[in-house]
Amino acid sequence: MTATTPIRVVQWGLGAMGQGMAKLIAAKDGLDLVGAIDVNPALDGKDVGEVLGTDPLGVSVTTDPASILDSSKVDVVTIATTSWVRDQIADLRTIITAGINVVSIAEEMSCPEAQNPDLAKELDDLAKKHGVSAVGVGVNPGFVLDHLVVALCSGNQEVTHIEARRVNDLAPYGQTVLRTQGVGTTPEEFKAGVADGSIVGHVGFPESIRLISDALGLGVDSIEQHIEPIIAKVARPARDRTVEPGQVAGCNHTAVGRRGGDEVIRLIHPQQVAPEAEGQETGDFITITGVPDIAMSTGPEIAGGKATAGICVNTIPRILAATPGLKRIIDLPSPCALMGPSAYERR
Amino acid sequence: MTATTPIRVVQWGLGAMGQGMAKLIAAKDGLDLVGAIDVNPALDGKDVGEVLGTDPLGVSVTTDPASILDSSKVDVVTIATTSWVRDQIADLRTIITAGINVVSIAEEMSCPEAQNPDLAKELDDLAKKHGVSAVGVGVNPGFVLDHLVVALCSGNQEVTHIEARRVNDLAPYGQTVLRTQGVGTTPEEFKAGVADGSIVGHVGFPESIRLISDALGLGVDSIEQHIEPIIAKVARPARDRTVEPGQVAGCNHTAVGRRGGDEVIRLIHPQQVAPEAEGQETGDFITITGVPDIAMSTGPEIAGGKATAGICVNTIPRILAATPGLKRIIDLPSPCALMGPSAYERR
Repeated sequence: MTATTPIRVVQWGLGAMGQGMAKLIAAKDGLDLVGAIDVNPALDGKDVGEVLGTDPLGVSVTTDPASILDSSKVDVVTIATTSWVRDQIADLRTIITAGINVVSIAEEMSCPEAQNPDLAKELDDLAKKHGVSAVGVGVNPGFVLDHLVVALCSGNQEVTHIEARRVNDLAPYGQTVLRTQGVGTTPEEFKAGVADGSIVGHVGFPESIRLISDALGLGVDSIEQHIEPIIAKVARPARDRTVEPGQVAGCNHTAVGRRGGDEVIRLIHPQQVAPEAEGQETGDFITITGVPDIAMSTGPEIAGGKATAGICVNTIPRILAATPGLKRIIDLPSPCALMGPSAYERR
Repeated sequence: MTATTPIRVVQWGLGAMGQGMAKLIAAKDGLDLVGAIDVNPALDGKDVGEVLGTDPLGVSVTTDPASILDSSKVDVVTIATTSWVRDQIADLRTIITAGINVVSIAEEMSCPEAQNPDLAKELDDLAKKHGVSAVGVGVNPGFVLDHLVVALCSGNQEVTHIEARRVNDLAPYGQTVLRTQGVGTTPEEFKAGVADGSIVGHVGFPESIRLISDALGLGVDSIEQHIEPIIAKVARPARDRTVEPGQVAGCNHTAVGRRGGDEVIRLIHPQQVAPEAEGQETGDFITITGVPDIAMSTGPEIAGGKATAGICVNTIPRILAATPGLKRIIDLPSPCALMGPSAYERR
C-alpha cells in the first residue's frame, strides 16, 4: 500500500468523535474518505463536508450501511457509535460479513474478551472466515493506560507491579460527558447515580488490565473497581457551568488487578472539571516496579479527544497489514501519526 | 508457542551484555538456553553457568558456531558481539543460512538500512529465502529514542517536530565505555580523539532518526551530527576515577534530521559521569510538537544495561511470530517483559 493507492475508508457514526475522525481521514493523503454512515435521517444524502462544516467532499452520508459496504470499493470502516460491544456487535457483523476490515473506538472493543468473551470469539471466527481484521483503540482504553504501559516495559527483565494514573480536565466537555461522571451532583445524588448506573465513571478498566496482563503474562485473575465522588473545595469553572464548593466536581475511578490475591496492576483515573483550581496538575503517570524500575510522566495529559480520533485513523494501515481475526493494540506494531508515504507501508 | 514448549535459544557472545542476556534467558520459564557461543578459546567447553557465576546450567560454551546451529534444535539466536553491521554480517549470514531467527543488539542492526543499505537488502533477501526473521534492538537505538517516540505518537493527528533527549550517568561503567566518550581527557585530547575516531560518542543516531522518520513518514532526507566535550566544572566521581574540573566528563552528542532543509527530528544524548554533581538530573525527555503536543519525561533514565538485555530477550517471541525477513522494532508488536505464558503467545 503506497500513497499512490490511497486506502478507501468509510466513517460509521458522525457524532462529535466520528466527525473528528472523518475530518482527519479526509485530510490525509494516504486515505480516501469514500463514504459515511449515520443513523440520523436528517443527515441522509447530505455531503459529508456539510455535516463537518468544511468544503464539500463529494461524498454523501447514508443511513443504509448495505448500500455502501462493498469490499471491492471499501478497505476499512472506522466506527464510532457506542462504548459497548453488545450495542455495536450487529454493525460489526455487517462490516465483517461484507469482507471489510474495521477499527472501532468502542471502549469495550479494545479488548472484547475482557467482558464479552463470547462475542470476542464470534468476532475472531467471523473475521477469519471473511479474511479481514477487526480491532478497537482509543486514548483510553487502547493507548495511555495500556499500550503505553506495555511499550514502557519493552526492556524490562521483570515487572512485579504497575501503577498508571491519568488526571484529566473535563472542563471543555459538554453535558453528555459530565453527566456520566456525576459533575454538579450532590454527594447523595452521586451515590444514587452510581447505584442506578447513570454515573458510570471511566469505561475501559477491565479492558486495560486485561491488555497489560495478557501482554506481559501477569496472570491477573480478579479485578476490583472503586468509584468515589471528588467533592469541590473551591468553585471550579467548566464550559457551561460552575461547580460550587460541596458539589461533585467529578469521579475518582480506580481499578485493581490481582493475581492470586496479590495486587499487580493499579489504574487510577480521576475525571473532573478544573483540577488545577485545587492545585492538581493534569498528566499521565506510569510507575513500573521491576528490573529496571521506571517512572514516567506527561504533563499535561495526552489530549483525549484528539488522540482517540488520531489513534483510530493511525491504526488503519496496521489493521490492513494484519493477519485475519480479532486483534488488540498489543498484537499490532504501534500505530503512529500518518505524516507521509512510508507511514502507510508495513513489512 | 506456549510455556509448555519453551523457545530454544542460543546466546552468541558472552561479554558483559551477553552474560546478562544469557542469565535472563536461563531464568525465564518460556525460554530454554540450549547453547552459547564465544570467540574466547578459554571459555570453550565450559558450562555456561560457570562463565555466568551461577549454578551449572548443563550447557557448554563452544567456539564453533556450526557445531550447534541446527534449526531442528534451535529457534533463535541472541547475538551480542559488536555495534557494527559490517563486523556482524558474517555471523548473521551463518545464523540465517542455518534457518534460525536472530535478535541482535548491534546498534546499527536496529535499522541497518540507515547506514548499510546493501547489507540490509542482503539480510532481508537471505532471511526470506530461509524462512526466518532478523531484528536489532537495544535500549538506544531500538527503544528510548525511537520506539518509545513512535508509541507516544500513537494518537497524533499531526507531528511537525520531535525532540528526544536522554541524559544518563556513565559513573557505573568501566574503561571501555568511558574511553569511547572521552571521559577524563583534556579538551584538546577530546578534539583529537573525535578526529581520529577513538572518541565516537553515541552509536545509533542515524538508526533512530530513520526509524522515527520511516514510522511516521516524516521523509527525513539529511542527518547532521555534532559532538562536543562536556567539561567538568566540579570534581565528578566515577567507578574507577575522579574527573577533575577542567577535564572532560563526557560527550554531548546531538543529531538533527531534516526534510528539505527543515528540522523535523532532534535527538540529544549527553553521556557523562555524575551529571548530578553539577545539578543535572538524569532522565529521558520526549517533546512532540503536533496535534496534540506531548511532553514526556522519565526520571531517572530507563536503565541502559538492564533494558538492552531485557528488550533483546523480550523480542524473542515477537521475532518468532513475525513474517520472514529483516524487521525493525517499528515493524513488530511492542516487546514487553516476559512474566508468564501469555507473554509468549501472539495472534
